[in-house]
Amino acid sequence: MKQYINDDFLLTTDAAKELYHGYAENEKIIDYHCHLPVKEIAEDKRWSDIAELWLGGDHYKWRLMRSNGFSEELCTGKAPAADKFAAFAATLDKAAGNPMLDWSQLELARYFGVFDRLSPANSAEIREKCNIRLAEKDFSARAIMLKSRVACVCTTDDPDDTLEWHDKIAADFKEVKVLPTWRPDRILKAAVKDGSDPMPHLAQRHEYFGRHGSVVSDYGLDTVPSGRHADLLVECMKLDAAAGRVSQLHFNCIRNPNSARFASLGPDTGFDTISDAGGLRALAAILDRLESAGALPKTILYSLNPSDTPALQALAGSFQQGPARAKVQVGSAWWFNDHLRGMQAQLESLMALGLIGNFVGMLTDSRSFLSYPRHEYFRRILCGLLGEKVEKGEVPCDIAWLGGMVRDVSFNNANEYFGFGV
Amino acid sequence: MKQYINDDFLLTTDAAKELYHGYAENEKIIDYHCHLPVKEIAEDKRWSDIAELWLGGDHYKWRLMRSNGFSEELCTGKAPAADKFAAFAATLDKAAGNPMLDWSQLELARYFGVFDRLSPANSAEIREKCNIRLAEKDFSARAIMLKSRVACVCTTDDPDDTLEWHDKIAADFKEVKVLPTWRPDRILKAAVKDGSDPMPHLAQRHEYFGRHGSVVSDYGLDTVPSGRHADLLVECMKLDAAAGRVSQLHFNCIRNPNSARFASLGPDTGFDTISDAGGLRALAAILDRLESAGALPKTILYSLNPSDTPALQALAGSFQQGPARAKVQVGSAWWFNDHLRGMQAQLESLMALGLIGNFVGMLTDSRSFLSYPRHEYFRRILCGLLGEKVEKGEVPCDIAWLGGMVRDVSFNNANEYFGFGV
Amino acid sequence: MKQYINDDFLLTTDAAKELYHGYAENEKIIDYHCHLPVKEIAEDKRWSDIAELWLGGDHYKWRLMRSNGFSEELCTGKAPAADKFAAFAATLDKAAGNPMLDWSQLELARYFGVFDRLSPANSAEIREKCNIRLAEKDFSARAIMLKSRVACVCTTDDPDDTLEWHDKIAADFKEVKVLPTWRPDRILKAAVKDGSDPMPHLAQRHEYFGRHGSVVSDYGLDTVPSGRHADLLVECMKLDAAAGRVSQLHFNCIRNPNSARFASLGPDTGFDTISDAGGLRALAAILDRLESAGALPKTILYSLNPSDTPALQALAGSFQQGPARAKVQVGSAWWFNDHLRGMQAQLESLMALGLIGNFVGMLTDSRSFLSYPRHEYFRRILCGLLGEKVEKGEVPCDIAWLGGMVRDVSFNNANEYFGFGV
Repeated sequence: MKQYINDDFLLTTDAAKELYHGYAENEKIIDYHCHLPVKEIAEDKRWSDIAELWLGGDHYKWRLMRSNGFSEELCTGKAPAADKFAAFAATLDKAAGNPMLDWSQLELARYFGVFDRLSPANSAEIREKCNIRLAEKDFSARAIMLKSRVACVCTTDDPDDTLEWHDKIAADFKEVKVLPTWRPDRILKAAVKDGSDPMPHLAQRHEYFGRHGSVVSDYGLDTVPSGRHADLLVECMKLDAAAGRVSQLHFNCIRNPNSARFASLGPDTGFDTISDAGGLRALAAILDRLESAGALPKTILYSLNPSDTPALQALAGSFQQGPARAKVQVGSAWWFNDHLRGMQAQLESLMALGLIGNFVGMLTDSRSFLSYPRHEYFRRILCGLLGEKVEKGEVPCDIAWLGGMVRDVSFNNANEYFGFGV
Repeated sequence: MKQYINDDFLLTTDAAKELYHGYAENEKIIDYHCHLPVKEIAEDKRWSDIAELWLGGDHYKWRLMRSNGFSEELCTGKAPAADKFAAFAATLDKAAGNPMLDWSQLELARYFGVFDRLSPANSAEIREKCNIRLAEKDFSARAIMLKSRVACVCTTDDPDDTLEWHDKIAADFKEVKVLPTWRPDRILKAAVKDGSDPMPHLAQRHEYFGRHGSVVSDYGLDTVPSGRHADLLVECMKLDAAAGRVSQLHFNCIRNPNSARFASLGPDTGFDTISDAGGLRALAAILDRLESAGALPKTILYSLNPSDTPALQALAGSFQQGPARAKVQVGSAWWFNDHLRGMQAQLESLMALGLIGNFVGMLTDSRSFLSYPRHEYFRRILCGLLGEKVEKGEVPCDIAWLGGMVRDVSFNNANEYFGFGV
Repeated sequence: MKQYINDDFLLTTDAAKELYHGYAENEKIIDYHCHLPVKEIAEDKRWSDIAELWLGGDHYKWRLMRSNGFSEELCTGKAPAADKFAAFAATLDKAAGNPMLDWSQLELARYFGVFDRLSPANSAEIREKCNIRLAEKDFSARAIMLKSRVACVCTTDDPDDTLEWHDKIAADFKEVKVLPTWRPDRILKAAVKDGSDPMPHLAQRHEYFGRHGSVVSDYGLDTVPSGRHADLLVECMKLDAAAGRVSQLHFNCIRNPNSARFASLGPDTGFDTISDAGGLRALAAILDRLESAGALPKTILYSLNPSDTPALQALAGSFQQGPARAKVQVGSAWWFNDHLRGMQAQLESLMALGLIGNFVGMLTDSRSFLSYPRHEYFRRILCGLLGEKVEKGEVPCDIAWLGGMVRDVSFNNANEYFGFGV
């Protein structure tokens, strides 16, 4: 590898290098939206096999492996770890330009000191090397978070969760803030189905989450809702507004389109996909109802369909209200879009239609403790993009000024917008 | 600033420099679609404060300022001019990559000789410098137009307008053609609502506009219409066809989505946004009705949603008919899309699906007398794009040939297509 | 011309040159989807005039000529060949960045040794030069295919076709496999209309095509179907699955939107356009029905609307099933999208969401025997794109590894996926 994973990975201009190394690289990480298993932080989990750590629950990897023709046995099944790891290496061997290759190589480099391209030829050797490293004392869930310089993470939690693991972590792991996120999807779905009123219970749990430090809620909508589902969403967002929390809305996702696989493997196993349902007018109506009621919370909008991005960026601009900066904003390129070109496109759209300087930046949306290099990836992409703009004379060549924005997007904006105080 | 606003702004290759300086820079400006207040041309308005000139009515600037957390007091309210200007400077300080930054710096450079980046640190000083310049004798509405080498502008007018200001301008300001554009939106909307027949009156006013030099009509559709609204649109476009005028269709816009702000501030105050309503099939049906009736006028199509662009470019290609070149064409990147990447994308799509050599080029769509540098911006983007293609060997390296197209797109095509005769 | 059509056309980096000249250039061509007139292969057709060869039936060229204001007389009418050719040259003179210019110049270079830019000034001279070449002995349908190093083509055929021409070709032109593609659109459309059951007849013809070597079917859907049309499509695709053939689904096309021209000129004369009907959820439902029935064939999805591409790439990932690699895949940029930027965008999307290494690559979709340089064009674009990624450090700089993928995408993958055995 000549230029790939090294100090200047993705930094193709002098300006990009100055921006990254001078303003981004050393900022701590805020991961305001993730799916880390809280219990594993509480118990400070350890792993003995990179195959388990990488392939035990990561449905993105399974998905790619299926696409390379590998059987379910090698993805979710009982095949030996060595075979699974070899199958994954063979998959990456076809994956030039796929973020999974970049992420995997970043993780190998940053956590295991491996800079070779993982391939069928060296997969056994690399697995062994990783497993030796995994056995070392400083390789646990918490140690990874500390080594990655994580300041704060928000996990994703059911409203009925007791949050006892969060309590335990708060008591004995003070170096990283691990805060719960209130995500009422399950309860809303049931209420829409059976016509019951979930709000008294939800309000109580919302308050409970607040007492446990929650500053952000998350709504997985699949399609932008109308009718009663929209009514309930509005009620929930009013709770967020009253409590000063941030609402996150995720939409335009088709869940479980492959019903045969859903029947055999269940949800979240790598079959969900992008919807083209649009729904921007319905979304505007929801924001309008809240604004008219004086109860629009800070809101982050995420569509899984990148064709929605420009319209979404414009919509965010129609519901701004001080004193918050960028009160409504479009989230980072999400899920199928958090790759190099996807993140560049989201940043370009944000710059063209909004204020990059106020962006809350990156989230991992991940279940893995090794996913923090995605923040590095994002920061490199941000600096690379700004650096190219400097080089082409598209933005003023004022590195200190651009660097201030880079630092804000990397850390300060999220800290201020959510009110983490880290 | 190293490379930003200077002679070679956005011209990153030798070919781009040759094309811009040799074929684009010196062409006069035709602004075939704008919203200049005609009375202010007639009265040759002057300004005493750059804050008033920039922030008195420009809802794009208010929109961005709100996004930076500033109160309505500082946008549309009664805050002192100095505070408003400072707030705008603080907003631009977050706006790397936003066209508002580029436009503002271009205006400062071209009209006020200011090349520094406007920032909170220097905003008071720059305002003072601009205000001194504004007080000079040669800084009036007409003087700006002459200094900008404007040959012709088309204002946007209600069919019931007496056009008396146009008459006055035609009588005593012969250096620039200021022509009215017939825009019947208000009357069509009322007719759809109350079921009345507006056509006899509209036909009369259409004829009246023709006698006052109008060569183009404009239809703001929000959503591509069906039913009676579509019927009336077809009737209006038949008037255009019979009179040899150009029809402009603008669509996929959501007007006033924020009803609380609409109630307090009214329309056109910076809250409109992009719609994802699509409607290409309905649009095809409207063009088909006209073509079948032998009454399709020259037509320019504009969607506010850039995801529509490729389909729109293809649709234009399905209704071509000589002897006009590019009888139906897709307009320049419009409103939320008239930024660097948006204009590049529109030009790329046009080149891929149509004939760049026949494009009528840029319009400002603006209410401001200082917006002519947007033509410069467009021409630099066009030349920059072609220059990169030359550099990469994507187009034949024949500068005279490409330069001829650049000159046509900058001036000649609009002059011929609309029949301005300037 | 400095850099345009030459050995390194579109290869802007050293890596791109290594990849193209080392791994792509010498691969034979598989054109798994075309519309060549089989009779003309069987009869080994010859041409006497480049104007006839280029303009006799190519509605893409007519379309562009109309866009340049030329009359129907010069497109589909009885104008003299010299005038038609001159009109086409004048059209290309406005077509910087249009694929028609690139294709035409590639064809002039590769088949006629003409490297000058075709223009109004030299069109008579170039036509004469081409016509002299056309009269030479080695310039027939079969000779062009051999000279282009075509290994296999799949024509597009009505289920009721006797395939006698295919039989004749199989008997006396063994150097190139010319296989029929089963395309039941006409019969399905009639069955939907009259409510009859076409399946017994279709099954019989499907089997007949199999006996004549057919390995792929093609379904032109305009809009993703629902109801009975979807039921019949599912039944047809089950036939493909049972026979081990590949299904191709083409959609989001508006056919014959210009009814006046359709009335005078008929279908396929250059008026079809891109639809924005979406339909991804309906498409997911069709794939789901097949997968649930254990009868999902290898499937290639093509939308004419490039805004659908990311959602389509993701959808393909939801229906993967070994042992086939990339069992469901998104086809090459199609029709209005098979231009430089369109192909780059399709490849970028594929890399970001799938495995480039398993892609079956390019098809011409063409009626012309001179269209094989489009494979060259595609390969150059692929190598150019990978080369830029190497240069920017976006992919590992391992040329042998990338070159293996380039070779597979150029030839091996299609050969294996369809089972051509060439």
